[in-house]
Amino acid sequence: MRVAVLGLGLIGGSIGLAARGRQGAEVCGYDTDTDAALRALALGVIDEHAGDIAGAVAGADVVFVAVPVGALADTVSVALAHAGQACVVTDVGSTKRVLAQVGADERFIGGHPLAGAETAGIEHARADLFDGATWYLTPARGSTAGVLYERLHRLLCAFGAQPTAIDADTHDTLMACVSHLPHVLANLLVAQAAGMLEREGSPSLPVVGPSFRDATRVAGANSAIWTDIYLSNRDALIAGIDEFAERLARVRAALSAGDAAAVGEWNESARADRDALLGSGLHGGPVRELRVSVPNRPGVIADIALALGRAGVNILDMALAPSEDNRQGVVGLWIAGEADAARAAQEIAALGFPVASA
Amino acid sequence: MRVAVLGLGLIGGSIGLAARGRQGAEVCGYDTDTDAALRALALGVIDEHAGDIAGAVAGADVVFVAVPVGALADTVSVALAHAGQACVVTDVGSTKRVLAQVGADERFIGGHPLAGAETAGIEHARADLFDGATWYLTPARGSTAGVLYERLHRLLCAFGAQPTAIDADTHDTLMACVSHLPHVLANLLVAQAAGMLEREGSPSLPVVGPSFRDATRVAGANSAIWTDIYLSNRDALIAGIDEFAERLARVRAALSAGDAAAVGEWNESARADRDALLGSGLHGGPVRELRVSVPNRPGVIADIALALGRAGVNILDMALAPSEDNRQGVVGLWIAGEADAARAAQEIAALGFPVASA
Repeated sequence: MRVAVLGLGLIGGSIGLAARGRQGAEVCGYDTDTDAALRALALGVIDEHAGDIAGAVAGADVVFVAVPVGALADTVSVALAHAGQACVVTDVGSTKRVLAQVGADERFIGGHPLAGAETAGIEHARADLFDGATWYLTPARGSTAGVLYERLHRLLCAFGAQPTAIDADTHDTLMACVSHLPHVLANLLVAQAAGMLEREGSPSLPVVGPSFRDATRVAGANSAIWTDIYLSNRDALIAGIDEFAERLARVRAALSAGDAAAVGEWNESARADRDALLGSGLHGGPVRELRVSVPNRPGVIADIALALGRAGVNILDMALAPSEDNRQGVVGLWIAGEADAARAAQEIAALGFPVASA
Repeated sequence: MRVAVLGLGLIGGSIGLAARGRQGAEVCGYDTDTDAALRALALGVIDEHAGDIAGAVAGADVVFVAVPVGALADTVSVALAHAGQACVVTDVGSTKRVLAQVGADERFIGGHPLAGAETAGIEHARADLFDGATWYLTPARGSTAGVLYERLHRLLCAFGAQPTAIDADTHDTLMACVSHLPHVLANLLVAQAAGMLEREGSPSLPVVGPSFRDATRVAGANSAIWTDIYLSNRDALIAGIDEFAERLARVRAALSAGDAAAVGEWNESARADRDALLGSGLHGGPVRELRVSVPNRPGVIADIALALGRAGVNILDMALAPSEDNRQGVVGLWIAGEADAARAAQEIAALGFPVASA
């Protein structure tokens, strides 16, 4: 397999290392900064480097675009213009609707690994960066590129990641809530604490409480990267801020009224929400194989992946096996745990495809 | 040394274990729940248990009140009524002004260790719970109980904690900002994420992003304890919420205007605040001893401790040595690091006391 990596920072570099080390792929890198490309070569992150995007993607089976959000759309377009017809092009950007129009080219499948401190450079790249990490993929609904999706999914599994399909709108709304808004809140909290200590005449008092440390761990993340992220997703983020402000006003009212019952209920409800949200990540158990008979028509793989992603079912591995006459095929899906496998079977049956446990 | 512990949960139990194991103290425990007291006895947390508060504090040198915030004031009052004249009474409550009126009794010094998951019971008590933890003490300004303050300070150092003096008002404002508000934000964030996933039709999608996990680690903390905390500090918390809402509105405006420069500056400023706040906890270096000559008059020890607490200087150990004629004395203070020792000397000189490096 030949992999191209465009943009050789922490994420791009780790993709190079994982592709070489975990998949035995031949990796060609490109970066607008030639020094970065040479460092990548010296670090063994890539096998070779190209002088331009066209050279990097020539002959590639998979292209990863790992440039900052602001440069994503242009880089993806150029990559698609030069990539072969059987090549899948993906990216690692933190917001996904910005590339939705590129989705008109079926060779493009948006991606977003939930891994990596974005502040670090290629020197911090490592082959195990994606171990256990959710890696969102945003195939266009009804995308015909099932073979390309399968190839990308399996490669990400080889990296140790958990590919999860999600549509681009849902992804951006989700990220606004679970990533961008928490970053905003962390920034506000450190600023408020710093102002408070200044006013109290204790600007150098160490703030060591565990809740504060946890709540502000992501404050002041790399400005170049995060300004792009905030702005590229600002409609969803503003909606999230507005909802948050309303929720804040409601709890303020309960506190102001000294309403212990309301405060207690609100806190209990948060506990239940937290258990449901974070506890639901605890999948696992024996691996079950499902075999799904599908018509050989556009969109089947993307639709199955999106349905299982929405249901929170993690696909450990997938394999496509077309029938001899190419009219239909079988998709093998490996799912951890009886409960998730049963849920997956239900979701797939609801899409109208025959499904059986192998 | 004889120590009484009133309230045998995680914190009270860990105090018992630390006092026995680290200080060789004899520990008498009391809990309104006799079963809890018997479990504490069986677990080796206490040497004996008493049938009431009077029995527990009889002959004690130090009394720790470790009951829920709602029961603090009453328990402290009863303890003071029965404790000896040379006994120091302290508590471990998360808000401190509620006990400020008790401070009229100079034997009382409020306390608050930043340690422990409040959700756990005595079964989770451990002698090393306070290792490295900041333990706030709130002596009344001008308190004459220097000897009692020293005894308590040294005992907490023996527990492995870092006692830091702070006045009760500042403590509660600080906690509203760095603990209670982060808990409120965490609760709101999980509720919003749960609602969002429900609306998107993905209620069981695992939410695994590290920023979300960090930001919501404290969501839905023990309702019985936290309802008390929120309400006992609600004026400071409401002020914190109002300031936070204003800050949120300002960043919303910058996002809405698509003002990349303003968003970038805001993020950079948060980075600087975070470095200043969390980096300032990185004290250390060779230990320096300062010797301070002080008049043998009321309030000296509390005032020195409060000044160093405000300056963010950690007192590793302290010792009082009165002169033979009892008219003045020397306070030995051990401080880690040249820079902190120099700052401490400056603060103490500003109070008008001669100070020298030993």
